Amino acid sequence: MPEANAPIGCLALVGLGLIGSSLARGARRFGLAQRIVAIDVDAGVRARVEELGIADAVTGDAAEGVRDADLVILCVPVGAVGDVAAAIAGHMKPGAVLSDVGSVKGAVVAAVTPHLGDGIAFVPAHPVAGTEYSGPDAGFPTLFSGRWCILTPPEDAPEAAVARVRGFWEGLGAIVETMTPEHHDLVLAITSHVPHLIAYNIVGTAADLEEVTQSEVIKFSAGGFRDFTRIAASDPTMWRDVFLTNKDAVLEMLGRFNEDLSALARAIRWGDGEALHALFTRTRAIRRGIVAMGQETAEPDFGRARPAADEKA
Amino acid sequence: MPEANAPIGCLALVGLGLIGSSLARGARRFGLAQRIVAIDVDAGVRARVEELGIADAVTGDAAEGVRDADLVILCVPVGAVGDVAAAIAGHMKPGAVLSDVGSVKGAVVAAVTPHLGDGIAFVPAHPVAGTEYSGPDAGFPTLFSGRWCILTPPEDAPEAAVARVRGFWEGLGAIVETMTPEHHDLVLAITSHVPHLIAYNIVGTAADLEEVTQSEVIKFSAGGFRDFTRIAASDPTMWRDVFLTNKDAVLEMLGRFNEDLSALARAIRWGDGEALHALFTRTRAIRRGIVAMGQETAEPDFGRARPAADEKA
Repeated sequence: MPEANAPIGCLALVGLGLIGSSLARGARRFGLAQRIVAIDVDAGVRARVEELGIADAVTGDAAEGVRDADLVILCVPVGAVGDVAAAIAGHMKPGAVLSDVGSVKGAVVAAVTPHLGDGIAFVPAHPVAGTEYSGPDAGFPTLFSGRWCILTPPEDAPEAAVARVRGFWEGLGAIVETMTPEHHDLVLAITSHVPHLIAYNIVGTAADLEEVTQSEVIKFSAGGFRDFTRIAASDPTMWRDVFLTNKDAVLEMLGRFNEDLSALARAIRWGDGEALHALFTRTRAIRRGIVAMGQETAEPDFGRARPAADEKA
Repeated sequence: MPEANAPIGCLALVGLGLIGSSLARGARRFGLAQRIVAIDVDAGVRARVEELGIADAVTGDAAEGVRDADLVILCVPVGAVGDVAAAIAGHMKPGAVLSDVGSVKGAVVAAVTPHLGDGIAFVPAHPVAGTEYSGPDAGFPTLFSGRWCILTPPEDAPEAAVARVRGFWEGLGAIVETMTPEHHDLVLAITSHVPHLIAYNIVGTAADLEEVTQSEVIKFSAGGFRDFTRIAASDPTMWRDVFLTNKDAVLEMLGRFNEDLSALARAIRWGDGEALHALFTRTRAIRRGIVAMGQETAEPDFGRARPAADEKA
């Protein structure tokens, strides 16, 4: 569909954090929009975006900022999308497309849909990419390159609107897949939400111990613990909203995790080495699949250690 | 103590996997031993060590291999150290020092001590370093540089023997700390053993789901799940032995983890956003401490993403 790959006339981004500022940088780097308007309620963020020069216009007035936009992307915590949609929907021009980048889709669809005026199509999106850093300085244009972006368009979404959003993400180097909001929320509960929850949890457990000092936890973290601290350093507001808005799927997947963990604890208590060895062998295959699919580096230690070639001998 | 920093005459390494082969490479690179003898029961490993040329002699006969050694380091899974100690202790020369690299110390001390002959000092050690790869090809000489190595010498250990082992690890660039085996096992249970257990567990849970396909788990793993797959790809035999030999501390720390996780699940179920935000904010500080102590990279995504400088704008 040609129009899908034609650059967007005016792109409006609401929220210039890690994702929003990466979209601004990527849209310019890859020539995906003729004009980029950055909208943020935080004056400090607006000032920084001006300094970085990653948008053509910067404003705190959402209604004003979206007026001429052909594509508006909400890049705010999922708990805030409803209010933002309410503030801008009436000011978007007919034929414009509204999208988002939220890690939860069912709750976002429910919060945004009631505010949509005639002629405004909503095509929810979720790029499965990010880092543990936040804010406009954390973004970079290639954040989405080679990563999946999941679209959850309503059944009656105009084909052209879906093609426009798909084309935008493909222009950023993302691989686009479509599914229902319900399935998205289940898949992400296990591939993202529960992993974050248990990472936050073990870091909290370690911090609260009395027999082991915080300094010991830090010093000896290379034994495995430090891997968990990365995602446990992610944005607190974004993640609070994820757990509050994807409650059912998260608690369901957490239930499965707990059942399996109880069985594993029992195997340890009863000295069932075969059961442990069988699981530990099975889990290696999944990582090989992730590396083979280009979703992970094959370098030891994520590449942290990175010995030079001459270091091997 | 001068002798601590004098090179070791003959160093014998039993087990040439990731750790043993890194010790061979490091001892040579940093001039820590005049002669290095590699001992391994696996003919394939011995052949590979010959090809790599990382030892002066390679043998499958442990008794013969340790005969002239001044320092013997056991680099085998903790479940095997007892048998290896029984096989070599009687063949070590008086005044020689025996050490190990096991991730569990209490069980190792209990398994090795009964086999020690007169004049053989045992100084247990645990370098808190490694990667998810195994075998003689996975090692590199700087694996221990800037990492902690924990010694758990018995109260009656000769000072010179402890100094010899300490000097060896400091020569590899490690930071040496001493504690009791019991405290070591408690500290490592939370900084290493339980993190590995929950990583293995969630990878297993994800692999067994029916509503979410394995291909979906792999594709969307960049949402956080993939971080767990790295340590869940670690050596199955080594980790089976860790859990079987540090059962009490692991189950105790796992109990704390589960209590905290139940409270977190309850906060999600009841929509207690403040409790979630408070924990998610607190956990950020721990990672900052780990990065500040040089135990972790400050690069986003462990450096996987690694945008070039020009990528930022």
